[in-house]
Amino acid sequence: MDFSLRLQENSKLVSDRLKTHLMPGQHFGPPRTLSDAMSHAVMSGGKRFRPFLMIESARMFGKNPGRVADAAAALECMHSYSLVHDDLPAMDDDDLRRGRPTVHKEYDEATAILAGDALQSLAFEILAHPACHSDPAIRAQLVLELSVAAGWAGMAGGQMMDLEEEGNAGKTRLAIIQRINAMKTGALIEYACVAGGIIAEAKPEEIDTLRSFGQLLGLMYQAADDILDTTADTKIIGKTAGKDEASKKATVVARMGVEKARAYVADLEAEAIKTLAPFGDRAEWLVEATRFVVTRGN
Amino acid sequence: MDFSLRLQENSKLVSDRLKTHLMPGQHFGPPRTLSDAMSHAVMSGGKRFRPFLMIESARMFGKNPGRVADAAAALECMHSYSLVHDDLPAMDDDDLRRGRPTVHKEYDEATAILAGDALQSLAFEILAHPACHSDPAIRAQLVLELSVAAGWAGMAGGQMMDLEEEGNAGKTRLAIIQRINAMKTGALIEYACVAGGIIAEAKPEEIDTLRSFGQLLGLMYQAADDILDTTADTKIIGKTAGKDEASKKATVVARMGVEKARAYVADLEAEAIKTLAPFGDRAEWLVEATRFVVTRGN
Repeated sequence: MDFSLRLQENSKLVSDRLKTHLMPGQHFGPPRTLSDAMSHAVMSGGKRFRPFLMIESARMFGKNPGRVADAAAALECMHSYSLVHDDLPAMDDDDLRRGRPTVHKEYDEATAILAGDALQSLAFEILAHPACHSDPAIRAQLVLELSVAAGWAGMAGGQMMDLEEEGNAGKTRLAIIQRINAMKTGALIEYACVAGGIIAEAKPEEIDTLRSFGQLLGLMYQAADDILDTTADTKIIGKTAGKDEASKKATVVARMGVEKARAYVADLEAEAIKTLAPFGDRAEWLVEATRFVVTRGN
Repeated sequence: MDFSLRLQENSKLVSDRLKTHLMPGQHFGPPRTLSDAMSHAVMSGGKRFRPFLMIESARMFGKNPGRVADAAAALECMHSYSLVHDDLPAMDDDDLRRGRPTVHKEYDEATAILAGDALQSLAFEILAHPACHSDPAIRAQLVLELSVAAGWAGMAGGQMMDLEEEGNAGKTRLAIIQRINAMKTGALIEYACVAGGIIAEAKPEEIDTLRSFGQLLGLMYQAADDILDTTADTKIIGKTAGKDEASKKATVVARMGVEKARAYVADLEAEAIKTLAPFGDRAEWLVEATRFVVTRGN
């Protein structure tokens, strides 16, 4: 099977599960505008790359994808909430996401803030529900890892630092850029891999390996994204291209230029793949995912 | 012991716990502005009324307050996040909270959005951590209940409906106002009582009783708050008074006037206290808390 087909298969599984979770209840349910806005954010044809990583990390240890779909859907809710809030006028102020109007453009700012807030709650609701995993200790661990990845020392903290460094393009030290990227983007990608191992009840040392791999992949993913922002077309990437330069974001491209950034990504790619060595052939799809990050066009 | 002293004692316990949780880590921790903004929101001398309810609900079943403090701190993080986001210009647009500038006034909008987001994550992190309770099934249940209370069919959904009904003052049906209040305010107050029972491993029927009590108390709390908004002074309540009328909020006061609203609160008070009958004298402090909601001046 080729990678894009495998990505599609996993994506469909997670999208179907998300659709179920996003169906408002019959009585005393959420207000319609809010659930519509949440669906607008989540059901927008994203690649579901993080869910892919989670599903394949778990499948390596023999876990059926259907058993991972809830946790993968939760992760996608968390990721989608972060995009909704990042796009707000007070943050990155973006009108376009995945080729469609952002939530605050389609609805309004208040609805976008609340849709993001409720998506974060929903992520934890899905993880903590017995349907996600029969073992409550595993559910609690999935919640704990995700809350750390999403919070002040993870995704939210990284976005804060990203905003603080804005206007400082090219002057921010590489170590700081890496720290921002590790928190802003890397934390959820790392979580995807780690959570797959947790769900599949992998050994602690196997989970450590998944964590190291996820960290490298996360750094790589953000750097590749920054290169795309510089080189690709708005139509193709489905969000406003060239924004990083315009708002003087502290990216690896701003720091070292496109060519050196490509070499930096290639180094990370090699290192990430090397990390997977202990898994041998079983890591085939994680290797493919790593290559995909470099070659993807959107 | 009188109620205000008991409230103070519990508040101190929870504030101390919150201080510990809000200390940024040594390395690779959250950015300083973000942790400062989170502390600004949480350490602002609130009454810690929801933590009080949780602690006393658990203490009725013999649970030591120190064992409830983490879950109570988590609840206060959740409550504080909702205040930070509700105060944003796109929402209720308030400059003052507990007598101090709101987070977006003291910092900026982006920081306020992220501080709220990170406080929500932190709430779940505290609950899911083994330090909160030794039984992972109880931790998972605490997370599940809080995520439902905070999410689209709870607090966030209620805030959405509240905004949608704005400008409609006096015309919104009482049933809708009650639904908004049950979601916006009631859900977390209900959670406080229910979680106390869960932590103390109360029987299912006892938890049901706590839930019914919490629901009535929540409705009462919001109605009393709406009366205060009309009758009290900005200085005393620590937030801008008279705002509901100015923005034509759908409140019980707008619907039925202050006098009838007072009678409505008195009815709820009697009903709430009656609900506690199965607990007998053990429910003393929950009864006191109910009376406090009616008599409080801020």
